[in-house]
Amino acid sequence: MSERLILHEYAASGNCYKVRLAAALVGVPLERREYDIRKGETRTPEFLEKVNANGRIPVLQVGERMIPESNAACHYLADGSRLIPANRFDHADMLRWMFWEQYNHEPNIATLRFWIQSGIESLSETQRLQIAPKRQAGIAALTLMNDHLERREWFVADAISLADVSLFAYTHVADEADFDLELYPNVIRWMEQIMNLPDFVPMDA
Amino acid sequence: MSERLILHEYAASGNCYKVRLAAALVGVPLERREYDIRKGETRTPEFLEKVNANGRIPVLQVGERMIPESNAACHYLADGSRLIPANRFDHADMLRWMFWEQYNHEPNIATLRFWIQSGIESLSETQRLQIAPKRQAGIAALTLMNDHLERREWFVADAISLADVSLFAYTHVADEADFDLELYPNVIRWMEQIMNLPDFVPMDA
Repeated sequence: MSERLILHEYAASGNCYKVRLAAALVGVPLERREYDIRKGETRTPEFLEKVNANGRIPVLQVGERMIPESNAACHYLADGSRLIPANRFDHADMLRWMFWEQYNHEPNIATLRFWIQSGIESLSETQRLQIAPKRQAGIAALTLMNDHLERREWFVADAISLADVSLFAYTHVADEADFDLELYPNVIRWMEQIMNLPDFVPMDA
Repeated sequence: MSERLILHEYAASGNCYKVRLAAALVGVPLERREYDIRKGETRTPEFLEKVNANGRIPVLQVGERMIPESNAACHYLADGSRLIPANRFDHADMLRWMFWEQYNHEPNIATLRFWIQSGIESLSETQRLQIAPKRQAGIAALTLMNDHLERREWFVADAISLADVSLFAYTHVADEADFDLELYPNVIRWMEQIMNLPDFVPMDA
């Protein structure tokens, strides 16, 4: 890749970590630019105009162009690498887990983590009422992952792919959202496998 | 494609329509199998075991294998066609809009449509409290689309892609969720462009 790559991010976000982990695993260096989402730094007129009209991080900057959405940024970085299966079915199956992650996993586990870190007392009434359904949906998501990994080493086919990178990000900090990961032994084994990869980088690196 | 393709679906779902529209645009025939989600037909033990452990439609069956998640199923069908850009950046940019659709568009516009069709009086208190934030987020999503289309014909690069197919599905029925599409003239022009495609199929076909 000849174009300069800049990750616009908030380092504590699992969505941003996904992109750093994918970049590390394929050996691509990223410049990093930090924004404090708690101070509204991704909602300034300048950010909305120049980085992402949707007001969210991560955004991967490729030269002068921008790719918002963590899983899309990962796809750009890993294109042509072993992290994206060449087989048509496996490619779609990988995307299946990445869409599932954004629909069934992240809105529950990541959101509860963020709410707990921000302080439950600061939540609105509407948010408070969502804690129980999000807790239940988060448990369902972890259970589905654990079941899927019962007879598999990786999520797709028999090799690591972006599906694993994407799901690892918020799963490995699910304890910070008060989920008990000990209940999901296959998930723990799969997480250890990822953390033992030679090019692995931790979230706080 | 030599393997038999079966779409497990609920025809009134925009997520299922996406897959039928993508198949029509690339000229691939699909068998269809209907489930009534209001009667819990996607939560039966048989469905969970054989079709999708996540209990949701659509699921694209390819031979004996299953691809849940609408956008992943579309990716399988359109692989190698003009609906998926060959260019690396454009491919990621297409996925960006598809992830955005599932995170920022569908949970607001599709969910409000479903709630209104099911009858507001049948909603729980938690759901009722989410109507206003979902309305606001749905308006933000339509506004972002309208702004993006201000100087573009299609969402990605200068040609139709799965991003357009994916976003069209619930946008063109947003009036059924009480959104006023007249407020988004670029979106209307873009929708007409899709409906005028020679291989277009309507949702109720």
